[in-house]
Amino acid sequence: MSILAKHAVNKEDKSNIITLGMEAKAAKKKNPKVINTTIGMLYDEDGSLYTFDSVNKVIASLNNDEKFAYASTPGSKEYHDALKHWVFQDYEAEILANMHCAVMATPGGSGAIGNTLANYLNPGDKVLLPNYMWSNYKQFAYESFESYDTYTLFNEEGNFNLDNLRLKMLELKKSQGRIVLIINDPCHNPTGYTMSYEEWIGLISEINMLSRDGTPFVLLYDMAYIDYDRRGLQASRDNIRLFENLNESVIAILAFSGSKTLGLYGLRIGAQIGLSKSEENIIEFARANKFSSRAKWGSSSILGMNIITKIFTNKEYEEKFKSELDYIRDILTTRANVFKEEAAKVNLKTLPFDSGFFISIPCDKPMEVYNALVKEDLYVIPLENVIRVTLSSISIAECKKIPEMIKRHL
Amino acid sequence: MSILAKHAVNKEDKSNIITLGMEAKAAKKKNPKVINTTIGMLYDEDGSLYTFDSVNKVIASLNNDEKFAYASTPGSKEYHDALKHWVFQDYEAEILANMHCAVMATPGGSGAIGNTLANYLNPGDKVLLPNYMWSNYKQFAYESFESYDTYTLFNEEGNFNLDNLRLKMLELKKSQGRIVLIINDPCHNPTGYTMSYEEWIGLISEINMLSRDGTPFVLLYDMAYIDYDRRGLQASRDNIRLFENLNESVIAILAFSGSKTLGLYGLRIGAQIGLSKSEENIIEFARANKFSSRAKWGSSSILGMNIITKIFTNKEYEEKFKSELDYIRDILTTRANVFKEEAAKVNLKTLPFDSGFFISIPCDKPMEVYNALVKEDLYVIPLENVIRVTLSSISIAECKKIPEMIKRHL
Repeated sequence: MSILAKHAVNKEDKSNIITLGMEAKAAKKKNPKVINTTIGMLYDEDGSLYTFDSVNKVIASLNNDEKFAYASTPGSKEYHDALKHWVFQDYEAEILANMHCAVMATPGGSGAIGNTLANYLNPGDKVLLPNYMWSNYKQFAYESFESYDTYTLFNEEGNFNLDNLRLKMLELKKSQGRIVLIINDPCHNPTGYTMSYEEWIGLISEINMLSRDGTPFVLLYDMAYIDYDRRGLQASRDNIRLFENLNESVIAILAFSGSKTLGLYGLRIGAQIGLSKSEENIIEFARANKFSSRAKWGSSSILGMNIITKIFTNKEYEEKFKSELDYIRDILTTRANVFKEEAAKVNLKTLPFDSGFFISIPCDKPMEVYNALVKEDLYVIPLENVIRVTLSSISIAECKKIPEMIKRHL
Repeated sequence: MSILAKHAVNKEDKSNIITLGMEAKAAKKKNPKVINTTIGMLYDEDGSLYTFDSVNKVIASLNNDEKFAYASTPGSKEYHDALKHWVFQDYEAEILANMHCAVMATPGGSGAIGNTLANYLNPGDKVLLPNYMWSNYKQFAYESFESYDTYTLFNEEGNFNLDNLRLKMLELKKSQGRIVLIINDPCHNPTGYTMSYEEWIGLISEINMLSRDGTPFVLLYDMAYIDYDRRGLQASRDNIRLFENLNESVIAILAFSGSKTLGLYGLRIGAQIGLSKSEENIIEFARANKFSSRAKWGSSSILGMNIITKIFTNKEYEEKFKSELDYIRDILTTRANVFKEEAAKVNLKTLPFDSGFFISIPCDKPMEVYNALVKEDLYVIPLENVIRVTLSSISIAECKKIPEMIKRHL
């Protein structure tokens, strides 16, 4: 008899990303020629973790209270306002005039996903996930006594498969009467796919048709990589603006990641941003997610919140941060371009890709390929049905070498 | 129809501590004469948040990776070793020779409590709590689809009520076949009560009798205030040493709070320390709690972990930290002594109290007393059946004034 509760006996973190990442790191320490494409963090061309000067400047300006005192569980109004300003950009006033909105501080984007799954599905319900995905979504679901179904992300043309998504949503509507759909865009993990504006219009329209009869619908928008979209800040905000069209029975919950946008990975700061036509939805959002936050982690990092607040409410810091973001985003785009060019040269097929931290190669024997590549000092991440290469952690020169190496072992 | 799942509709944070704390803070800003006894953080005699020089020195020595990179979900071996060294003190070698042990990094003591309730009780089960308590325990239980029962903390002599606890444990054994018992000691919140060594011996003996037949038993030891025990570090570690006597079907889970021990409240760092005679219990502890951590908050603060690791693995930092701890603990003890003396003078009855952040006065109309005291510029925390005064946030001079003020309005 286990000392664990029944549901906890099966809890086992199946992800190998962190373990393989540690092996790669250890290998690189011994041999600097090792190429480590495992880590979901941004590295500069010189191989060092990319940190924003604007972040370090702000930290140096904070007093003890701003670094060490307890934050309130939801975070301060100033933090909330700073995030609305950043996430909505030019549409801030318009969105806030047309929608109800509340913000909840969370430990990273992870906390935002955890809270949402804890509060919008009943035990036994299924969350709807893309078939290529950050596999931790499944664990969040299990932790909340839920399971999952998947929609096929791509159609035969390599575009967003709205037809399959529609079918899956109808199935779930019938079986459980409510839907939580996760959309990870732009720079989808692990493919790097980015939905077009037209695809977003189609998605919003389907969500509205499905929920017109009052079916509760939660669009959990995992926008971790939003600020690394090669199209720049505006394009993704154009998509968010479309949320104004969502009908009353829908809540969009935007999962903001301070880890990705500001490189604050290890500080654990993020947010859930609730957006709905219905005021009641937002009142309930604030109430239930505050409760869950207090009953999971108490409150979030005040240091992380104050860094974000100060950067996004001070013109000088914000301009500096934006130019640093442009610098590193350009590097990421160049890495992607180089990788794609080389992949084309050696005829290496990748999944549909635009930009972001990751690119994926379809593969039916990922562990074998992983092992073969390790022998050549290249560390990738083998997932269920793909090899994932992390562009954020390797140099442009390394991007040039990798496609040929993978191609040889596929 | 609510957009929330059924179980989430009732989620409402009933605690008024943070709200009343903010009101008190705002009042003090306008009028410096206001006495704010609401905040569970340590303030120095000059009214400033107490921060350890040793902590600030260590932060200044950390590089970007040590502050901002992702930590692994459980935290590093170095972090685990540093915590074992600090929490077990002189008994480290002995305890680790006699028990199996694993550590899981968490966001504060809160994360440790959240994980434990998520994994050791089945939905519908009850966690066993003291009748005077930090009310957030109830919310942790609800978040995991559980409820609670309470044991009567004090007997008529004002000592630990082992007889009542035994009865309650037997009831739960019968109804659910497993027990999770929370003991918050020393410096119990909100009373300041500290169990004697003999009371701990009695408790361990009861736990063993009850679980001798293999009944799974989790002793969730909330030791948030362990380093503020007026008896010093040794006395509480003598109690922990008694865990070596627990039998195979028991796991002790120690909830460590970086917030309290090191004043790192807002950084959100703590740990679950699992300790058991059974190796299987510890393997399962590490597996299930790693899964839950990844499926709730991803990973914990690397900055917090590195501060703690560096202080407890560097003789010089550790000595400096210990002397700073002695300084502020002595102040806290003086505040308690002054409060008790004054309470005796005006015949103000308190619940049994030894030391720590809080002291409580039994009261059957706490909101009325609260409102009357606000008019005299004194902000306390009204709980269900007591008035809580926070000694950690007020000066010795203020401790002298408060008993008479409360007495007048009881």
